[in-house]
Amino acid sequence: MNKTAIFHEIDSNYCYGVSKDELLIKIRTEKNNIKEVELLYVDKFKYLFAKKKEFRNVKMKKRYTDDMFDYYETVIKFDVLSLSYIFKLKDEKEEIFYGNYKFYNEINKEEGIAYIPEMFTMPVLDFTDLFITPKWAEESIVYQIFPERFYRGDNYIENKNHLDWNGNVENDSYLGGNLLGIIDKMEYISELGVNTIYLNPIFKAGYNHKYCTFDYFEIDPDFGTLELFKKLVKKAHKKGIKIILDGAFSSTGVEFEPFTDILEKNEKSKYSSWYKIDRYPVEVKSPANYKCFAHFPLLPKLNYSSLEMQEYILKVLKYWIEEADIDGWRLDVADEIPHSFWKKARKVIKEVKSEAIIIGEVWYDSSSWLNGDEFDTVMNYQFYTATLDYIAKNKINSKEYGEAISKYLAKYKKQTHKLLWNLIGTHDTARFSFLANERKDKKILALILQFTMIGTPLIYYGDEVGLTGGEDPDNRRGMLWGDSQDKELLEFYKKIIKIRKNEKALFLGEIEIEDSEDNVFHFRRKYNNDVIEIYINNSDKNINKIIEGKYIDIFDEKEVLGEIDILKFGFKILKK
Amino acid sequence: MNKTAIFHEIDSNYCYGVSKDELLIKIRTEKNNIKEVELLYVDKFKYLFAKKKEFRNVKMKKRYTDDMFDYYETVIKFDVLSLSYIFKLKDEKEEIFYGNYKFYNEINKEEGIAYIPEMFTMPVLDFTDLFITPKWAEESIVYQIFPERFYRGDNYIENKNHLDWNGNVENDSYLGGNLLGIIDKMEYISELGVNTIYLNPIFKAGYNHKYCTFDYFEIDPDFGTLELFKKLVKKAHKKGIKIILDGAFSSTGVEFEPFTDILEKNEKSKYSSWYKIDRYPVEVKSPANYKCFAHFPLLPKLNYSSLEMQEYILKVLKYWIEEADIDGWRLDVADEIPHSFWKKARKVIKEVKSEAIIIGEVWYDSSSWLNGDEFDTVMNYQFYTATLDYIAKNKINSKEYGEAISKYLAKYKKQTHKLLWNLIGTHDTARFSFLANERKDKKILALILQFTMIGTPLIYYGDEVGLTGGEDPDNRRGMLWGDSQDKELLEFYKKIIKIRKNEKALFLGEIEIEDSEDNVFHFRRKYNNDVIEIYINNSDKNINKIIEGKYIDIFDEKEVLGEIDILKFGFKILKK
Repeated sequence: MNKTAIFHEIDSNYCYGVSKDELLIKIRTEKNNIKEVELLYVDKFKYLFAKKKEFRNVKMKKRYTDDMFDYYETVIKFDVLSLSYIFKLKDEKEEIFYGNYKFYNEINKEEGIAYIPEMFTMPVLDFTDLFITPKWAEESIVYQIFPERFYRGDNYIENKNHLDWNGNVENDSYLGGNLLGIIDKMEYISELGVNTIYLNPIFKAGYNHKYCTFDYFEIDPDFGTLELFKKLVKKAHKKGIKIILDGAFSSTGVEFEPFTDILEKNEKSKYSSWYKIDRYPVEVKSPANYKCFAHFPLLPKLNYSSLEMQEYILKVLKYWIEEADIDGWRLDVADEIPHSFWKKARKVIKEVKSEAIIIGEVWYDSSSWLNGDEFDTVMNYQFYTATLDYIAKNKINSKEYGEAISKYLAKYKKQTHKLLWNLIGTHDTARFSFLANERKDKKILALILQFTMIGTPLIYYGDEVGLTGGEDPDNRRGMLWGDSQDKELLEFYKKIIKIRKNEKALFLGEIEIEDSEDNVFHFRRKYNNDVIEIYINNSDKNINKIIEGKYIDIFDEKEVLGEIDILKFGFKILKK
Repeated sequence: MNKTAIFHEIDSNYCYGVSKDELLIKIRTEKNNIKEVELLYVDKFKYLFAKKKEFRNVKMKKRYTDDMFDYYETVIKFDVLSLSYIFKLKDEKEEIFYGNYKFYNEINKEEGIAYIPEMFTMPVLDFTDLFITPKWAEESIVYQIFPERFYRGDNYIENKNHLDWNGNVENDSYLGGNLLGIIDKMEYISELGVNTIYLNPIFKAGYNHKYCTFDYFEIDPDFGTLELFKKLVKKAHKKGIKIILDGAFSSTGVEFEPFTDILEKNEKSKYSSWYKIDRYPVEVKSPANYKCFAHFPLLPKLNYSSLEMQEYILKVLKYWIEEADIDGWRLDVADEIPHSFWKKARKVIKEVKSEAIIIGEVWYDSSSWLNGDEFDTVMNYQFYTATLDYIAKNKINSKEYGEAISKYLAKYKKQTHKLLWNLIGTHDTARFSFLANERKDKKILALILQFTMIGTPLIYYGDEVGLTGGEDPDNRRGMLWGDSQDKELLEFYKKIIKIRKNEKALFLGEIEIEDSEDNVFHFRRKYNNDVIEIYINNSDKNINKIIEGKYIDIFDEKEVLGEIDILKFGFKILKK
């Protein structure tokens, strides 16, 4: 047995409450090294004082396998005050116990399974700290809009600073998209079937992307007014669509009043503690004499050591929920801001709207933000990278794809799984179509993965009608409208969205990833008695699969029995 | 190379700030499996946009070795905003890179060491969340007093409920020790050389141990009054002694007003949410119909889901600092109370006294409370168990002892190392002497370990004068005074305390544990140019050791050169 690979940690994502009376316990072992894992557990104090030492035991299930490890998991219903437990691990040769970070070959038979100090202990079981995510978000399908590029509202007046709508966009291009445009196209968005809109920044700011904020309390005049935005939210809500705003709080624009005040008054500015000034006088030039996001002088970094500044940002977070009734915040470069601030932010946000959602932008392993006291979920760039490498780039095979998905699922707490924003492109990446050499079959495979995988699908505006584009700024072209839309693709999107919404297993179900023997990626979603099998054939050969029993092919709407043909670069979605 | 044993985690005790401009990075590998580990690191954004990719590299040092793993560590001075890094691991056969939770055999030479997404990223480097512990506590030597058993104040009046001072104590015995007794003996405490007193509970409560509190705002009348306690604190402070109180906040006594109110009014009590009531009417009997600590009906568990109750406890924490100027809180069964509450408690405590110390009682791995936002340190029962097993029970040898110490040092953040309350006995354990079959040589070895090991020594009252006793209640005998004291032992304590206070390396120094080849445990403390070597011979044979160069034996106050004889069950403390 490879003991050095075995990993468990109390009071972590290896042992945590998943509901008021359920606790999840997980253990990592070397891939294919262990035959069976059992969890033996007791109520610490009852066991301690009992004459006859009794324990409960449960066989753990292998839930995930990544490139190097297997992850065994079990969820126990438990109402004790203090839990102590030990793992029993078996391979072909031996049976070993693992408790309190030590291995034991023998256990004390007289004392029961072990002495309490030999076990792991997880006493804080009252679940005051339970990670609770918004219920509605489990059904969420997100549509991301880059406001400047979506639609010119119907009262649009010609403006010579605006490019042709379908022109080639450069870094400094303006097309004239605005909030009225989004309101006018609410019907389109609703008919697509999505129920959540994530808007890139709309506050008064520089550039077309509006990420360098000048005023966090004002709508950018390029886009509209507060009244118009409130109308947008109301109209969306009427259609059952939630609105998420983008908050860029790591740095500001240089025209943000506190920063202009520093430029003017230097040390004497009452805002001097809001930024990280290296030297006075402060000047906007390169290299900057203050800390900046990514070393860009136009993006001075806010100083979170200043509690006064923190209070200001907390006010912003609160204001837009109270004033405009938004449903959540997507937090830009969230990993550049200290955890202590996000803990406060969560409290403030959930206090004004308990059902508001908080999504962090973190491109890598996000475990440390997903413990229940900061974000509900993240932009899932790990899904993105894996799907891109698998479908568009052929860099990894089906097996490796399953391992990559398993790797983050095994690491993140269960509460966040259904909420992970599974994306195949955003304003920060080249579009999927572009990276897949405009191959529609590839795009559709990625889409099927996105809509059947555990997590929340995110559609970057235009992807649904064939909009393409390379790296920024090309990925932010004007939305296609009218005849330029790929209507067939649009219908495909509508269909897969409808299927997902009809099948609880696809948005509420557990996931089981099958070992891939050939180039078919096969996984399963399960919810109560519903079982849905998904097959992705990312190869240029049709593949025949034997299946047991009768299924409904819910995409092609027909019954299948005994075997299926998964066409090259094709897929199957079967319901038992 | 055993890749499955390699462990690193961003944003954890494997990567964290240790001061305003220093970051500690650690990696775990299988014991003796790796020859060399190097850290390669970059400023993420500079590297991303640079034409010529440059990086810095530093050889990591093997700092700890436990039963299965080696831990390599390095502290880097860093002023970048975003850090990305990758490890280079070498063994006899290969050279491998480890970054972003993946292994790479090859790296991209053109791009530099690797692409950013192949590296680990630790961007939140502004240290707003830095773990800061009280400076004074690094010099602390703690004396723990169980007030009922320490001394009857000089105005003591005979009381027929009190046992003879030196009688055999039972669970329900009272001896009549009180606060005045502590005040009267302050000179004794001060002369011993300690500078911190930790008092077991003194609030109005049941039993002699006062752990089932009836009133958190009142001094128990058995012990004295608020005025008397304030006098005690003042007198202690005048002598440079800090006062730490014991807070039992997991459960209360049944005579605590909120609970009596529930007993009287049941569902209608305004305090009904303060406890975890299973069924009404609430009755104090066994089994209880409310949740209790360790299932004892006389210890009803407080319900931390009630924010109102939380506010009450926060007020208590604040009150005793503001009213009586205490210097910190020792938190009883701290692992039974949710983390979210401790995070609030830390803020409240540090707000009223930034230099106050917070010590949690957790008997096992305490990492999850020691991240900087809950406790400063814990009662170090891991040191206790290891020292007991090594010295008193001969269950483990020198090598295993070093591994046990290394195990928690490798896991806990550096900031807490010097503050760990290293104990060899408390009111919750049999006394060390008792467990060591009253062998004084063994007791002295344990003492040497306690006073030279990294961490804060804690003396349980009476240990210094030969008081002994088995399990509770025998471990709480009346303090020995006058001729019954072992004066020789007392002088030994005074001497080792003095040595510790004289040698910065012993309280501020880094620790290096040597591989033990024989039954001598050898470790080193280093501070600036001071180097102190400690040798513990826990065997019945005198052992001769070759040493390089000239040392001062700071215990025997003589020069040694070339070699030393460490007598059986003896020790040496040598200064370079």
